[in-house]
Amino acid sequence: MRPILKDLKDGKISIEEAEKLIKSQFLDIREVARFDVGRKLRTGFPEAILALGKSDDDIVQILLSSPTDPMIVTRLDPERFENIREKISPLEERGFSIKYEERAHTLVVKGNEKISLDYKVGIITAGTADIPVAEEARIILEEYGCQVIKAYDVGVAGIHRLVQPLYDMLEEDVKIIIVVAGMEGALPSVVAGLVDVPVIGVPTSIGYGVGEGGLAALHSMLQSCSPGIGVVNIDNGFGAAVLAIKIIRAFD
Amino acid sequence: MRPILKDLKDGKISIEEAEKLIKSQFLDIREVARFDVGRKLRTGFPEAILALGKSDDDIVQILLSSPTDPMIVTRLDPERFENIREKISPLEERGFSIKYEERAHTLVVKGNEKISLDYKVGIITAGTADIPVAEEARIILEEYGCQVIKAYDVGVAGIHRLVQPLYDMLEEDVKIIIVVAGMEGALPSVVAGLVDVPVIGVPTSIGYGVGEGGLAALHSMLQSCSPGIGVVNIDNGFGAAVLAIKIIRAFD
Amino acid sequence: MRPILKDLKDGKISIEEAEKLIKSQFLDIREVARFDVGRKLRTGFPEAILALGKSDDDIVQILLSSPTDPMIVTRLDPERFENIREKISPLEERGFSIKYEERAHTLVVKGNEKISLDYKVGIITAGTADIPVAEEARIILEEYGCQVIKAYDVGVAGIHRLVQPLYDMLEEDVKIIIVVAGMEGALPSVVAGLVDVPVIGVPTSIGYGVGEGGLAALHSMLQSCSPGIGVVNIDNGFGAAVLAIKIIRAFD
Amino acid sequence: MRPILKDLKDGKISIEEAEKLIKSQFLDIREVARFDVGRKLRTGFPEAILALGKSDDDIVQILLSSPTDPMIVTRLDPERFENIREKISPLEERGFSIKYEERAHTLVVKGNEKISLDYKVGIITAGTADIPVAEEARIILEEYGCQVIKAYDVGVAGIHRLVQPLYDMLEEDVKIIIVVAGMEGALPSVVAGLVDVPVIGVPTSIGYGVGEGGLAALHSMLQSCSPGIGVVNIDNGFGAAVLAIKIIRAFD
Amino acid sequence: MRPILKDLKDGKISIEEAEKLIKSQFLDIREVARFDVGRKLRTGFPEAILALGKSDDDIVQILLSSPTDPMIVTRLDPERFENIREKISPLEERGFSIKYEERAHTLVVKGNEKISLDYKVGIITAGTADIPVAEEARIILEEYGCQVIKAYDVGVAGIHRLVQPLYDMLEEDVKIIIVVAGMEGALPSVVAGLVDVPVIGVPTSIGYGVGEGGLAALHSMLQSCSPGIGVVNIDNGFGAAVLAIKIIRAFD
Amino acid sequence: MRPILKDLKDGKISIEEAEKLIKSQFLDIREVARFDVGRKLRTGFPEAILALGKSDDDIVQILLSSPTDPMIVTRLDPERFENIREKISPLEERGFSIKYEERAHTLVVKGNEKISLDYKVGIITAGTADIPVAEEARIILEEYGCQVIKAYDVGVAGIHRLVQPLYDMLEEDVKIIIVVAGMEGALPSVVAGLVDVPVIGVPTSIGYGVGEGGLAALHSMLQSCSPGIGVVNIDNGFGAAVLAIKIIRAFD
Amino acid sequence: MRPILKDLKDGKISIEEAEKLIKSQFLDIREVARFDVGRKLRTGFPEAILALGKSDDDIVQILLSSPTDPMIVTRLDPERFENIREKISPLEERGFSIKYEERAHTLVVKGNEKISLDYKVGIITAGTADIPVAEEARIILEEYGCQVIKAYDVGVAGIHRLVQPLYDMLEEDVKIIIVVAGMEGALPSVVAGLVDVPVIGVPTSIGYGVGEGGLAALHSMLQSCSPGIGVVNIDNGFGAAVLAIKIIRAFD
Amino acid sequence: MRPILKDLKDGKISIEEAEKLIKSQFLDIREVARFDVGRKLRTGFPEAILALGKSDDDIVQILLSSPTDPMIVTRLDPERFENIREKISPLEERGFSIKYEERAHTLVVKGNEKISLDYKVGIITAGTADIPVAEEARIILEEYGCQVIKAYDVGVAGIHRLVQPLYDMLEEDVKIIIVVAGMEGALPSVVAGLVDVPVIGVPTSIGYGVGEGGLAALHSMLQSCSPGIGVVNIDNGFGAAVLAIKIIRAFD
Repeated sequence: MRPILKDLKDGKISIEEAEKLIKSQFLDIREVARFDVGRKLRTGFPEAILALGKSDDDIVQILLSSPTDPMIVTRLDPERFENIREKISPLEERGFSIKYEERAHTLVVKGNEKISLDYKVGIITAGTADIPVAEEARIILEEYGCQVIKAYDVGVAGIHRLVQPLYDMLEEDVKIIIVVAGMEGALPSVVAGLVDVPVIGVPTSIGYGVGEGGLAALHSMLQSCSPGIGVVNIDNGFGAAVLAIKIIRAFD
Repeated sequence: MRPILKDLKDGKISIEEAEKLIKSQFLDIREVARFDVGRKLRTGFPEAILALGKSDDDIVQILLSSPTDPMIVTRLDPERFENIREKISPLEERGFSIKYEERAHTLVVKGNEKISLDYKVGIITAGTADIPVAEEARIILEEYGCQVIKAYDVGVAGIHRLVQPLYDMLEEDVKIIIVVAGMEGALPSVVAGLVDVPVIGVPTSIGYGVGEGGLAALHSMLQSCSPGIGVVNIDNGFGAAVLAIKIIRAFD
Repeated sequence: MRPILKDLKDGKISIEEAEKLIKSQFLDIREVARFDVGRKLRTGFPEAILALGKSDDDIVQILLSSPTDPMIVTRLDPERFENIREKISPLEERGFSIKYEERAHTLVVKGNEKISLDYKVGIITAGTADIPVAEEARIILEEYGCQVIKAYDVGVAGIHRLVQPLYDMLEEDVKIIIVVAGMEGALPSVVAGLVDVPVIGVPTSIGYGVGEGGLAALHSMLQSCSPGIGVVNIDNGFGAAVLAIKIIRAFD
Repeated sequence: MRPILKDLKDGKISIEEAEKLIKSQFLDIREVARFDVGRKLRTGFPEAILALGKSDDDIVQILLSSPTDPMIVTRLDPERFENIREKISPLEERGFSIKYEERAHTLVVKGNEKISLDYKVGIITAGTADIPVAEEARIILEEYGCQVIKAYDVGVAGIHRLVQPLYDMLEEDVKIIIVVAGMEGALPSVVAGLVDVPVIGVPTSIGYGVGEGGLAALHSMLQSCSPGIGVVNIDNGFGAAVLAIKIIRAFD
Repeated sequence: MRPILKDLKDGKISIEEAEKLIKSQFLDIREVARFDVGRKLRTGFPEAILALGKSDDDIVQILLSSPTDPMIVTRLDPERFENIREKISPLEERGFSIKYEERAHTLVVKGNEKISLDYKVGIITAGTADIPVAEEARIILEEYGCQVIKAYDVGVAGIHRLVQPLYDMLEEDVKIIIVVAGMEGALPSVVAGLVDVPVIGVPTSIGYGVGEGGLAALHSMLQSCSPGIGVVNIDNGFGAAVLAIKIIRAFD
Repeated sequence: MRPILKDLKDGKISIEEAEKLIKSQFLDIREVARFDVGRKLRTGFPEAILALGKSDDDIVQILLSSPTDPMIVTRLDPERFENIREKISPLEERGFSIKYEERAHTLVVKGNEKISLDYKVGIITAGTADIPVAEEARIILEEYGCQVIKAYDVGVAGIHRLVQPLYDMLEEDVKIIIVVAGMEGALPSVVAGLVDVPVIGVPTSIGYGVGEGGLAALHSMLQSCSPGIGVVNIDNGFGAAVLAIKIIRAFD
Repeated sequence: MRPILKDLKDGKISIEEAEKLIKSQFLDIREVARFDVGRKLRTGFPEAILALGKSDDDIVQILLSSPTDPMIVTRLDPERFENIREKISPLEERGFSIKYEERAHTLVVKGNEKISLDYKVGIITAGTADIPVAEEARIILEEYGCQVIKAYDVGVAGIHRLVQPLYDMLEEDVKIIIVVAGMEGALPSVVAGLVDVPVIGVPTSIGYGVGEGGLAALHSMLQSCSPGIGVVNIDNGFGAAVLAIKIIRAFD
Repeated sequence: MRPILKDLKDGKISIEEAEKLIKSQFLDIREVARFDVGRKLRTGFPEAILALGKSDDDIVQILLSSPTDPMIVTRLDPERFENIREKISPLEERGFSIKYEERAHTLVVKGNEKISLDYKVGIITAGTADIPVAEEARIILEEYGCQVIKAYDVGVAGIHRLVQPLYDMLEEDVKIIIVVAGMEGALPSVVAGLVDVPVIGVPTSIGYGVGEGGLAALHSMLQSCSPGIGVVNIDNGFGAAVLAIKIIRAFD
């Protein structure tokens, strides 16, 4: 603001002009956010686009406007990716790479931005069917430069399978463990009862019958008798990754 | 039926009398139940009375009519027991003992019947607050002559506490393990993933917030990724015990 | 462990080697499970794979790795079976037979293992539409060598149809009755009120309107005024069969 | 209306007066109701007052205004009756009798009106705890001159207890059977599968755990595989009785 | 039974034969049902088959076994009817007519049985989209010889449209009014507040958003401040018709 | 009514004729509605047809009967519009224009009626995926001659984007702001906490996981700590527009 | 802002001082709210305090700080009012009047502020038990100087009772009708189908059984087939009144 | 383990003794937990006891056994604290201080252990009624030596109140912000949209009507369109604090 005030004082601009310039700076609360941006977000923050509920055209349009680097589209199934593949090829001409991860239903569009957060995060899934959600988290984390240590399909029905991977993760000094589980969702409770790093619980919609669609798993994680689990929405691998990144950044 | 038909043929009874006698045997489906009773229930089956929804007078009246030996009243809180204590004292004159288990809110009225089922059943609770429900099950089981091996407060938040008791139960050759758990109800899944005896899951209403009243625990047990858990209603220690007894009797 | 210790004492191995060997045995809780395995599971336990949520490739890969004998895949609809049929044919070359039961949506891959549990289990369904779930249970039970006595479509709307089959099952000395019912799910209550063998209730998702998807049936079974019903998740014929097998094994 | 039109034609009243008189008759849709009233309701219809949510003063005020004969107050627990007993004594001076049925929590205030509907209605309850709801229905029915045949505590857990009472009711030529059941609410399905008179199902809030508060029972009745059950709200004995009376009146 | 006993007494049959004959009569509780059948069901009762959850083959098989006359299949959508049309043509050779009502998704297979119940029933729908459910009820009623008076699309949003049809129905002396409504399901309350014949409420799954799938309508009907509405399950036009027929028969 | 009464008085019609004529006027409650119609609805009110649950034929038939001008069909997806496009072309010959708005799934059929309500309404959406619901509202409002000021995709995740549009709307003197939001539905609370014009909240079914289908958004709006939000059903853009129009008309 | 800029230009303050002064004005988004305040809220807006969840001390402390005139406390039951009565008497010394409305559980603390909004609002309740919620709305409205026309206990069970009051309200030119209803909550639908002024629906928690606690009523209002109802939370008379006031102010 | 092996090798202990010693170390999975304990938990971790569902005697007994330092009891209301106050006084003799925080319903029993985590955590509440839950979190955090910066009652209804406190927290370099909100629970979304430190959302049971008991708030937080919020159970201030501490420790 000072340059404006100085210009005013020096007579270079009128009071009206000064008022308008200052107002344009302050009229929203962006200032607060920007303060934070200035402090933390030296490297760009990817714009993540939830494909659900958006038309293919919406997605193409957002991508072509290239608001950020990288851009990540979640919940984009293979058919939809096929539909938009051609239309987003101009991005490649502009120097962006286009990578579609089929299992995770995630599209990553990346330019030259380099992000690095030199920390390790563990991702555990209870079953094979939970892997797509875990992969969504993994991709986001790796795009941010985190190193991910995976242990998939180590669920509570055979709890002995869990011990070695946990041991390894602790040895590797992971800072956070993301636990992805459907069905009864007991795994985060068990993990949080064994280790002392923070656990992020991601319920998945795997399961059938009562409490289906992930509700049983979600409620288990929230009702956990192991305190200290941060829970995100059902199937929200993206949200878990963002929470992990925000934690890491806060301490970076 | 043959004796009746023979009497008819021999002219000892009239057609009308024969009809009446046969009808009294067949008019309901009691025959089927009786067959079963005759085969299995040589020793008396206790009448269990759920106190919820019944007035104190209802309970007194049922007990004084002494339909079975023993008689068990569940969900009878201490105040209500105080209210009816005096009124059921005539039972003592008739040779029944009256035992009220405060923690389990259960009343046992017992005569001379001796029941013995020479098997062991394990009962595990996740927390301290689940104990009343477990005790309801224990009392029923012991009234039937089963031996109960208890391991209370060994929940999943500190899963290492669970291993030794489980080991001991298997050593003692328990035939069934009843697992009582509130909150997220993960314990039966963990137990059923470690041992091969049948597990009966009893969700309890312990917990607060989402999935409270035992719903989170119930759904966890039904959605368990460890197959082979038989689940009963929330807080239904009585039902778990009866299921265990029915299983034991079937193989006795 | 003793051989290791003896080798150490005899100087055949170093302390470091002994430590490593012992650790590899103990580092997880497999010991407890193994103890149990050693006691009970002399015959192989089939790996059951829930097809829901897994890709066709996941299933093929698991089957081809032949972890157990037999292997059972549940919830595999005919189209998906067609998709993987060719890819799993190498199993036949290795001596496995491949049997797909269309009504039950269940695939059984079996080698030379012979399992026999010389007990009878009854399976009852309320309606025609409940049969696929019952068949899932039947297949599992028969794969374990149990003999199954079926009584399908004998629901509570015409309760007189139920009596003869029940009578027959008791005559045949079934140890457990699995009752499969959708709609209002009243059949297990009625059966458990008539017989004294343990009843496993399997709610099905048959029905429409309120309480649909099996919720009405599930709640009925859990709220049953006939105590002693072990309930499994909606449509979980597999779980009911496993519970029955675990019970039988415990007493075998 | 004709007298008014005739008066107008005869010059006894002006057009304005005629318009006003006719309008006062027609301005609402009371005409339709009145048509029906004139046809069916020659004897007074009791005003039933749901005590829930009304203050004691509200109830006293409504009763003292004596809108109908009889007047029935439902869901009035004993303490509240004590509170208003004195204040409604003026009704006795006006020739009304005051009868409070404690078990049913129902108050009947009756004058000289005599109602008689010469039909029989059966009322069945599954358990002892369902009796208050059944009694609410019984009182309403008897106030209307119906004869009630009761069979309480004949639930589905011991289905053989049900057969004789049903047989008796059919012998007595009941026109309708009201079945009152909590817990799993299976009784109406069983009854409707055995008899051909219409069944009115009344779920009660008896039970605990999942589906509690009567939801399991309600859903069972609506999902019944025995078609032809008319269901009313949970604990709504009053509604069941009114439906029965409306049916009887329609055919009277 | 007497003829059998007489034959025994007269030496025409042996005791063994007599026992067998009597047992076949009594072994189930069919006696009670049959008593009722003998009294009421002089004309055949149609077997109604819910197509949901049954395979096409199941339906064909049931129809070809021709258990009753008429046979009615509900919830059979046009594609499925096309699939089975050819396969059930043998029924025509046996003298049955085959009529498929597309709007109601209902198939009627009828032989020479003539049923007549000389009563009128009103059917009202709130909207156009509720008509298929109403038609399901209409077909059942007409197959039983009831006369149906329809008033479709007269919902509560324009309550003035309702008055004339109601007036007409009362003039025609309908004995029962079936009210079919989705969305907020207020129409049965309004109708039951205006007329004194019994009202059967059928909630439909029409609507979207909160309380969708018919829940809002169902709850409205059960919570109705107009007492005396008998409610059936969502979209259950068949059930409403059966209830109406049972009522009419009870008074026939 | 006076002309009739006068004719009667003058002997031009008989009492019977007069009665009949008056009755036809009054027999329903249309009078009340008409009173209101006469006062407010000088310009025609469009008939809005919810396409959900109606067959294509139903919709064509309603449109061809041209009950009002304009006619609006909501929830008509593009395929269905293609199906009926040809069949409703006769409307064009009668001078109606046919406009299908693809994003809003809304069809407008308009004749010569001119409606104008000279007021401004703001419409805000939280995300891109909420736009179709907002567009449904916009079309209805504009058909009524309201001017709509849009601010789409200004959700609470970046609350600073919201301030300028709100400022502009207040400058433009909007009388009502319609806020359309899915996910957690927080936007109406935030808006109602910032401005003093009435806010209409429209939850949308955008979102996944717990509280999906719009329930989380709906509950947020109803539980809002900013009082004074009028909420309509999930995805009910039409309802929001009608409420806005009713408000404006009341003050016009 | 201009005076600051002018002072800066005139050299009366330094750039640093100017920056600080401007920042203090703009640092939050209060500016937007203030703009609105300046335009609309010339008369004071009462601070409404929801007593639920606040301790008595909290309430006293807020009131004694006298933030606004008037101050309104809702959901304050009589016992709690007794508890704080003494402690808030200092307000009277400062010239505030203290009025507690027992039926509405509402406390009004008023000083000299005079508010007047010269419009009429109708309030209708379905039953007697809905009156407290209606009264909460009435008090708020009257405190704002609106005139309220009441019609209590005119519910849909006797719809003819509704017509005259509605007619009267329209004659009185009410701008908005608030309809308060529990049970099935059908009344707003009926009212909105008869009149053309905007309707605000307030579901109440009156009722029992399924959909209790106001859910049935809430869902009815949201699913209403009469479009144009703005719904507020269950029992939220306050919210309805604030919405009405915001509407009136927007057009004042 | 090495000392044991060495002793064995050196002949100091027998093979049997060595086996027993090693087994006692390994028989459970404590090893893994201990590893973690050894690495992270150099300072004692308080045993937090949830008072809900435990009897007073349970709590006294646990406290007197002094398992950890400090010990924290949550959800202990003032009456219960009074009940146990006397009985836990022996702890004071052993050098523990006893501090009961009435607003937070939390008891802290502390000895000489000193814990310090030199980080700042922000706690924000939406309303006054959310403060007890926030205080529960604050106490736990401060017991761990964290510094807490509070901003209570800055909810979304007046969002401008929120900006300055947020600004201050960021200035103070808080690492995590815990946001406690009932009603619609929108505050965490707004906060997470403005700042970049991780947000822990704690829904509270404040609110009434639909989504009450904290469900609306919980769902809002999970459905938040601002990604990166870790959610804990309703009213679970303790859980939020433990999560924050685990995060801080992981990076300490």
